[in-house]
Amino acid sequence: MQNLENTVDRIQELIDTDTEQQLRDELNTYHEADLADIFQQLKPEERLSCFTKLDEEKAADVLEYLPPQLQVEILGEIDETLASRLISKLPHDEAADVLGDMEDDESQTYLDKLPEKFSSEIRELLTYNDDTAGGIMNPKVLTVGYSMSVKDALDTIRIKAEEESMELYYVYVVDKHNHLLGVVSLRTLLTSPVNLSIADIMIKDIVKVHVDDYQGHIADIFMKYQFNALPVVDLYDHIKGIVTWDDVQDVVEEETTDEILTSSGIVTDLGDDDDDVLTGSIGHAIKARTPWLFITLIGEFIAVSITSKYDHTFTALPIIAAFMPLLAGLGGNIGTQSITLMVRGMSTGQVTLHSSWHYIWRETLTGISIGFIFGLFVSLVTWKWQHNIELGIIVGLAMALNMTIATMIGTCTPLVLKKMKIDPAVASGPVIATTIDVIGLAVYLTLVTWYLVSIN
Amino acid sequence: MQNLENTVDRIQELIDTDTEQQLRDELNTYHEADLADIFQQLKPEERLSCFTKLDEEKAADVLEYLPPQLQVEILGEIDETLASRLISKLPHDEAADVLGDMEDDESQTYLDKLPEKFSSEIRELLTYNDDTAGGIMNPKVLTVGYSMSVKDALDTIRIKAEEESMELYYVYVVDKHNHLLGVVSLRTLLTSPVNLSIADIMIKDIVKVHVDDYQGHIADIFMKYQFNALPVVDLYDHIKGIVTWDDVQDVVEEETTDEILTSSGIVTDLGDDDDDVLTGSIGHAIKARTPWLFITLIGEFIAVSITSKYDHTFTALPIIAAFMPLLAGLGGNIGTQSITLMVRGMSTGQVTLHSSWHYIWRETLTGISIGFIFGLFVSLVTWKWQHNIELGIIVGLAMALNMTIATMIGTCTPLVLKKMKIDPAVASGPVIATTIDVIGLAVYLTLVTWYLVSIN
Repeated sequence: MQNLENTVDRIQELIDTDTEQQLRDELNTYHEADLADIFQQLKPEERLSCFTKLDEEKAADVLEYLPPQLQVEILGEIDETLASRLISKLPHDEAADVLGDMEDDESQTYLDKLPEKFSSEIRELLTYNDDTAGGIMNPKVLTVGYSMSVKDALDTIRIKAEEESMELYYVYVVDKHNHLLGVVSLRTLLTSPVNLSIADIMIKDIVKVHVDDYQGHIADIFMKYQFNALPVVDLYDHIKGIVTWDDVQDVVEEETTDEILTSSGIVTDLGDDDDDVLTGSIGHAIKARTPWLFITLIGEFIAVSITSKYDHTFTALPIIAAFMPLLAGLGGNIGTQSITLMVRGMSTGQVTLHSSWHYIWRETLTGISIGFIFGLFVSLVTWKWQHNIELGIIVGLAMALNMTIATMIGTCTPLVLKKMKIDPAVASGPVIATTIDVIGLAVYLTLVTWYLVSIN
Repeated sequence: MQNLENTVDRIQELIDTDTEQQLRDELNTYHEADLADIFQQLKPEERLSCFTKLDEEKAADVLEYLPPQLQVEILGEIDETLASRLISKLPHDEAADVLGDMEDDESQTYLDKLPEKFSSEIRELLTYNDDTAGGIMNPKVLTVGYSMSVKDALDTIRIKAEEESMELYYVYVVDKHNHLLGVVSLRTLLTSPVNLSIADIMIKDIVKVHVDDYQGHIADIFMKYQFNALPVVDLYDHIKGIVTWDDVQDVVEEETTDEILTSSGIVTDLGDDDDDVLTGSIGHAIKARTPWLFITLIGEFIAVSITSKYDHTFTALPIIAAFMPLLAGLGGNIGTQSITLMVRGMSTGQVTLHSSWHYIWRETLTGISIGFIFGLFVSLVTWKWQHNIELGIIVGLAMALNMTIATMIGTCTPLVLKKMKIDPAVASGPVIATTIDVIGLAVYLTLVTWYLVSIN
């Protein structure tokens, strides 16, 4: 698909002009992932009319790529028997996700209509927490017995892969009670003499995750070791499923979004179901956005109460007030840069508590350098503009101090929060910006007062 | 590895106490990815002394996980023959990356020492731009002829996989001139009758990328279709290599970092080699951070010049000045939230130009609601605190207007930039924050002036 917007326009035209066969043909030429993108741009009734024109296999595939709320929307609108058939065509982990997003009584109806074995497997998956390995794993995992020969193993794989339509990543080796003993790559299997025993060629030091491990932790393991898949075990080391990189991809995207939104003071874990700030209700958006704004409000009231003590200064020298936004604005900006660098550095693993002094020192030097350059520049401009060299010196000095302090606060706070085991992304939010505001104003107004005292 | 910091401390102790055998044993028990993490925390001389104690295979693996500057550092310090041996053990794409990060004459020395075939393949890889498919692909790709039977294909795979130690993802089908014709999954190969022809079981509609496609585009394709690997072809459809998800993973992390840093007004593409703001030189950090700060400075000088026109107001009613930080702070914060939501929504694909009116309307409503709540609250607090109902009304009204306008600017600007094909992440930066500052102050001071005029 070359251009999403043109494609959507063309499809909407086909719907409007009621050329059904042409619409059907057009839709079935796209890849499922493209169709999912197109469907997200359509109005609900257009979406439904397109969906029902897809071949059944393709419809199930498209469902897999759609976001949860659209999956539930579409399944709720189509015939119940068709819906059950589509659900039973989904991979187990996807089917469980779809059913997990529905109201309880609705998902029960579907579960009762699904084939016995499939529905009992899904019911087990639904017992795991959404955010854990159990919640994202696929329970269909390819295992072979440790006492098999390479030939037996290959035969087993042929049969299982055909029956269950499972992905082939690694082959896990288990004993007869399904305890995970090792792993063999397909490459090793294909290139080993056929009469060797699996126990002799398997790798025994395996990285695995526990069903209750949180998805963020699993994503970190994937990113670090760069595996394609990881086995999931229970407390007794029974293999329960497999997590693949595409499951984790979604987790990484979610976590990145959370990191970015948290940084701008949006609360991402309100704990209700309707947990998307962009697509959820406006009430939800307000709940997510106001808490840190409110804390900013309190912080800024402190700034106001400090500033209001200088009313005699403003009466005497009103130009002093006019420079306040300049100081607050630049302090806030350079501070945000430092916070962003540190928070991102910590989340990619570049910055650790171990190396923190190095970065504090480095950022402080950067802050002093930039502060000096900007302070000098602001001094000169203010002097020439206002024809007042003292004002120029005060504003420039306040600027230099302000930018240096803002850099230091921006660098240290995420590290301190990390040390206190608080999410450092919170630091980039409004609180630090407000702190920088308050300190910046205090520094500036103190300098002004000293000057006024010295000339009187 | 349970805890990076404890592990690093223990290893540093082993280095200091000079218990060489123990250090060697300890190091060789860790996974390569863990060792790479540990090495990044060590001082250069500690790093070198640890690296030389690793088995050669393991040393090559660790090298793969290290960031470029450390790869070059370590290879430069160890014996040249050992360095060449280590490089020749790396996958082709990694070897090319390592050599590409060295000075030209240095990499030539190594290339001359490497086995003929390997070095000529690496020389070809080095001709591609770093940021393109050619620059991140592995040229070792598993192909079978389209006229082969399934049995022949499996035999070919057995031999090739053993010789070349290549990863098995998909098997690509080519004609005798190496034109890409189709793809077969290992699963299909293993489960098809052995005498069928490959041409009959291959998938012909394949998603592929071109050697000159930019890595960001490739990452988007991986994220959308969730493939494990993609074939890379040249203009004439000859297969040139394969890009796997772990290559793309690094790209995605890089792009996310760029998006986040750009949002805070840090320039990420200065175009020099030393392109890491966190680890590069301080001069580089200053160059990356000042451009947008400077633009902010100009914007804030505009704010100052507007505000300075109200000097008579500040003389008459100095409390008016004290409320400026409150208005600027909250406008900036809520505006940043809107920008962040839109920029992130666009980069995950949730927000498109097609759906932009929906989001503009939604954000505006959110802005009005939050503005109303905060305006009312601020009115009441100001009234009670300053015993001045008029001031309360003015500040509260300015707050409500300010927050609504800030939300609208924050929502629309990224969309407009996107429409103009400018990176919307730039919007979250200082420019918009400054614009919001200026407009916020103008609204507030205009309200104040109206009030002062009306009472006089």
